[in-house]
Amino acid sequence: MTDHASYEAVSWDGRVLRLLDQTLLPQRVEYVTLPTLDDAIEAITTMRVRGAPAIGVTAAYALAIVARDGDAQATKRAAEALADARPTAVNLRWAVERVLRRIEGDNGPDPAIDEAQRIHEEQRDADRQMAELGASLVAPGSTLLTHCNTGPLATAGGHGTALGVVIEAHRRGLVDGVLVDETRPRLQGARLTTWELQQHGVPHRLIADSSAAGLMAQGRVDAVFTGADRVAANGDAANKVGTYALAVLAAHHEIAFHIVAPLSTIDPATPTGEAIPIEQRDESEVLTVDGHALAAEGTEALNPAFDVTPASLIASIVTERGVLRAPFAASIADALATPALAGGS
Amino acid sequence: MTDHASYEAVSWDGRVLRLLDQTLLPQRVEYVTLPTLDDAIEAITTMRVRGAPAIGVTAAYALAIVARDGDAQATKRAAEALADARPTAVNLRWAVERVLRRIEGDNGPDPAIDEAQRIHEEQRDADRQMAELGASLVAPGSTLLTHCNTGPLATAGGHGTALGVVIEAHRRGLVDGVLVDETRPRLQGARLTTWELQQHGVPHRLIADSSAAGLMAQGRVDAVFTGADRVAANGDAANKVGTYALAVLAAHHEIAFHIVAPLSTIDPATPTGEAIPIEQRDESEVLTVDGHALAAEGTEALNPAFDVTPASLIASIVTERGVLRAPFAASIADALATPALAGGS
Repeated sequence: MTDHASYEAVSWDGRVLRLLDQTLLPQRVEYVTLPTLDDAIEAITTMRVRGAPAIGVTAAYALAIVARDGDAQATKRAAEALADARPTAVNLRWAVERVLRRIEGDNGPDPAIDEAQRIHEEQRDADRQMAELGASLVAPGSTLLTHCNTGPLATAGGHGTALGVVIEAHRRGLVDGVLVDETRPRLQGARLTTWELQQHGVPHRLIADSSAAGLMAQGRVDAVFTGADRVAANGDAANKVGTYALAVLAAHHEIAFHIVAPLSTIDPATPTGEAIPIEQRDESEVLTVDGHALAAEGTEALNPAFDVTPASLIASIVTERGVLRAPFAASIADALATPALAGGS
Repeated sequence: MTDHASYEAVSWDGRVLRLLDQTLLPQRVEYVTLPTLDDAIEAITTMRVRGAPAIGVTAAYALAIVARDGDAQATKRAAEALADARPTAVNLRWAVERVLRRIEGDNGPDPAIDEAQRIHEEQRDADRQMAELGASLVAPGSTLLTHCNTGPLATAGGHGTALGVVIEAHRRGLVDGVLVDETRPRLQGARLTTWELQQHGVPHRLIADSSAAGLMAQGRVDAVFTGADRVAANGDAANKVGTYALAVLAAHHEIAFHIVAPLSTIDPATPTGEAIPIEQRDESEVLTVDGHALAAEGTEALNPAFDVTPASLIASIVTERGVLRAPFAASIADALATPALAGGS
């Protein structure tokens, strides 16, 4: 097994920002370049790049490209447009603000590009730390359940968040198999997670999201690992729709439910889950698959892209600075106050 | 609103057994005839007809057609093949056994056909009773959540089981709206329930199965109604995969979870849910939608078609002979021992 994935969700060669177009996976592995701000915003809103950390990295580079031209007003407008591209994942706003702060206080050459590269590099370091800390929570012979996609594609970093833990636990010989929720409506589990687990040689089975409960009742799930798009100061966590169901079901079956997320996903300015805006995406995502109509013509749909899992259902939040546990308000505050590790910001 | 649907899932004109091919809905409304036993078995296994009561009615007619030729050995073989066509729904075996018993003790003209028609007619009566009894459980202004398809298509009767309750409650002005789980992998909610609710003028929204939990947390679900494929003597109920998840989630949010099923779905010979065989269907149902591949090539899937909801999570089981409540072992035994209503067997 390679230490890094053989594909790059987001890459920067000093000149061009390039994405692996995730809307074409797993059928086609195609890269697109994002020469303009509009290209970057389109790629984020249409989910050519998705995953909270990966859209943060993408936004940082996209803003840096604008900032390089030195037009402060254009940079400010770009920052706002990028931060608003998707509302739930806080990494987007966090990355944009980091680039803006860096520009303010740095008159060196290309400070914005340097900051975007730092954010990207720190994500790789964070992925490695989370994978190692999270793998220590996995008992030998475990079957792990995961939802959505949280691998290298989702972080543009090392091995991802929750899937990074799964991959590392497998590398240590602890994993019997992985159950992959297909994750309707966008099917990130079916399309992306199966593909990434194949690339990393981890044995897995795809399941319909609603199969998880019955498999838990049969004792076929030992732990659940998911990512997060925003963690509130009290530990409530927004993540891909369906995560909350898994957390309730895991509690009902006394199965540990873990979240894996870098500190950039924790927003101390969001007091509780109630304050997290939940993106409502287009009805067509529920009504169709690849343009193929599923429901009776004229049917309307509800399509909340995320849900909120209360801290009370979360066994631990694995971050790059430690495994946080209840009471989360305190453990989160401590983690955010701890100086970064060497190599961090 | 018409009292009966303008389409017939299963019909018998005295000569030919005809089905509405449910695999083509909602795009095409096409009927197929089932001249031979093999045609009937194929239609049941491929789910051209599905829904526990509807496959019972279909099997009764298919067996009666064989029995009419008077070859006792051929009739016995046909009965076994039909009963084995799908393992979970007990109505299949129940209907086949009723036709066999009738043949044994009746030397009149075409007793098997007459028994199949009785089963069909009794299902219409049962649907009406269940709809009326179930609607009395619905509070004014309710938003109801349902899973899979349990309408006229699923019973070949009147208005169906759970969806019959929804339709009747709407007719009484009690329903604000219906949330329809799409019901992966076969998408019966998306394909069939939206279509039937349109036909009956009931306002509804389609949701991904995994959205239900978040909507419950927001107080947007007032009650859950589903059908069942087999109810054990203690009240444990097997139904379409995902039903058990809804029952756990409903309990967590203190929302009533109701099952609507005719007595033919209750199997006193099955002591508890553990004894119910769960059909494992082909992986392709999870890996593809209408032949369109979703996951990475070579991915394996698990596809349990049903799950079991323990009686402890069920508020009531609505049957044609009353609304059964805990302790279910006693209320089920009482209902099965009660003489049928006028017109019943």
